[in-house]
Amino acid sequence: MSETAAQQATIDGATRLYVIIGDPIEQVRSPEVFNPRFAAAGLNAVLAPVHVRPELFDETLRGLMAIGNLDGIIATVPYKARIMPFIDAVLPMAAQVGAANALRREADGRWSGDMFDGRGLVRGLRDADVPLHGRRVMLVGAGGAGSAVAVALADAGAAAITIFDVDFGKAQSLAERVASVYPACMAKAGPVNIPGHDMLINATPIGMAPGDGAPMPLGGLTPDMLAIDVIHKPETTSFLEQARAVGCRTFNGYVMLNGQAEELAAFFIQGARQ
Amino acid sequence: MSETAAQQATIDGATRLYVIIGDPIEQVRSPEVFNPRFAAAGLNAVLAPVHVRPELFDETLRGLMAIGNLDGIIATVPYKARIMPFIDAVLPMAAQVGAANALRREADGRWSGDMFDGRGLVRGLRDADVPLHGRRVMLVGAGGAGSAVAVALADAGAAAITIFDVDFGKAQSLAERVASVYPACMAKAGPVNIPGHDMLINATPIGMAPGDGAPMPLGGLTPDMLAIDVIHKPETTSFLEQARAVGCRTFNGYVMLNGQAEELAAFFIQGARQ
Repeated sequence: MSETAAQQATIDGATRLYVIIGDPIEQVRSPEVFNPRFAAAGLNAVLAPVHVRPELFDETLRGLMAIGNLDGIIATVPYKARIMPFIDAVLPMAAQVGAANALRREADGRWSGDMFDGRGLVRGLRDADVPLHGRRVMLVGAGGAGSAVAVALADAGAAAITIFDVDFGKAQSLAERVASVYPACMAKAGPVNIPGHDMLINATPIGMAPGDGAPMPLGGLTPDMLAIDVIHKPETTSFLEQARAVGCRTFNGYVMLNGQAEELAAFFIQGARQ
Repeated sequence: MSETAAQQATIDGATRLYVIIGDPIEQVRSPEVFNPRFAAAGLNAVLAPVHVRPELFDETLRGLMAIGNLDGIIATVPYKARIMPFIDAVLPMAAQVGAANALRREADGRWSGDMFDGRGLVRGLRDADVPLHGRRVMLVGAGGAGSAVAVALADAGAAAITIFDVDFGKAQSLAERVASVYPACMAKAGPVNIPGHDMLINATPIGMAPGDGAPMPLGGLTPDMLAIDVIHKPETTSFLEQARAVGCRTFNGYVMLNGQAEELAAFFIQGARQ
C-alpha cells in the first residue's frame, strides 16, 4: 500500500486509545494505516505504537488492559502467541491458529481476541478477484503465518492444502488441526510437490535476506498457477521473480497486509459502535 | 488560553509517547495544549489521555512505566500525591509539596518527578510582568493547589506568606514546611487578614459551584492589591468579581494553566533531547 497523506483525529481528553504492541516497534506501519480509517469513520480514536519489552510483557499487558479508555490492541512479532492468555473470549480463527493478533474490549468489558493474518490474505485475494473456493494449495511453512494462512484458506473453501515445513511434525500438527475443523478441505503434510496444486504459497521468512533463493523447488510450476509470498520486504522475492518468469500471476505480502487492514479496522470500528 | 488549531505529529512506529493520567479524564486539555508544542519543537511525540481507574492505579502505572517508548507522564486529579512512590528521583519542588504532576524518563532510564502547579502560577505572573520578589501573600487554602502555590511563591522570593485553611493544622503544617526550606520567607498560619499583604490568593475550590460566594472576607482589600484565583471555570468567580469592583488587578486560573504548560513542555522537550 502506498503511503497516503495520513489523517488522524486531533487528540483530546475524550480520545479512545488503540495500541500496537511489538518488539521492536519502530518499523510498524499500523498507525499510518489505521488512524486515517478511524478518522474517516468519525471516531475520536488513535492507534499508537507501544514498545513492549519481552521481560516486562505480562506487567505491560496488565497495565495496558487496565486503562479505562483503551479499546483495542494489535499484537505483532513476537507476541501473537504470547498474548493468548490475556484474552477472555478467544474467537474461532485465533483458537484454531493458536495465536491472535487483535484484541478488542467488548461492551461488557471483556476482551475478545482474533487472528487476522490469514483472513487478511483471503480478503486481499478476494479484493483482487481471485476465487478461493475449490482451490488446491501447496503451502510452504507451518509457523505463525503458515498456520493463519492454512486455517483461513480452509475456512474460505479451499479443497486441499498440502503443507510442507522443514519441521515435519509442525506441518503434520497444522494439517491435523485444519482437517479436524474443516473436514471438507483435504489437509495433509507432505513434501513440496507442485503438480496437482493451483496455488503455491511461501509462508516462511526465506526471501527476506538479500541472498535468499526460493524457499522451495519450483519444478512443475505452470503459468496457470498462482504464486503468493507473505513477504512484503523486498516486494519481489526470488520466489516471485522466478514465478513471474514462468508466467504466473503473483502476489507479495502487501495483499495480506492491505486485506488485513480492512478486516482489522472493521473489527475495531464495529467494536467502538457497540 | 484560547484553543488554537491543534497541530500534532502524525503517529508512526517511531513516535514517542506521553500520557496524562486522571480520573475522570475526558475534561483534560493537555493533549491540545502539548501536542502543538511537541510538533513545533520537531519531536515525533504525542500526548494521549489515559483513564486510570483508582482501584487499578498501581497495576496501570507499572504497565505504563514499563512501555519502552513512553517518556513522560502528567498526573492530574486525583493522582498527584499517589504517584509519588513511582518516582525514582523526586525533584525539590515535588519533595516540598509532597506531590508531583509530571514524571519524565531520564537518559539512564530512571524516572524523575516534579511539581509544576505552583511554578505555573509563578511563570504565568512573570509573563504578565508581575514582580514576585518581596511580595506579601495572603493565601487561602492549604490543600494540593495551596501547597504548590505557597512553595513556588516562597521559592520565587515572596517576603511573607500567611496561610489560612479551615483545617488549621493543615495551614500550620504547610507554613512550617515552607519556613523550613525558605527561611527568608516569613510563612505562618493565621486567619484571613488582608491588610499588610499585597497579594490575595484563593487556592480552594470555593467559587466553582454556581452559588458560591468569595472564600474569604474581603475587608481591607485595596485597589493596589493583586487578586488571584486558581479556579479557571468559571473564568470570573465571585471573589474576582468583587476584587475587580474594588479596583484590583485580577488573574484567574488560566494564568497558572498557561504558565504551567510552558514549564511542563520545556521539562519534557528538554528530557527528549538528552
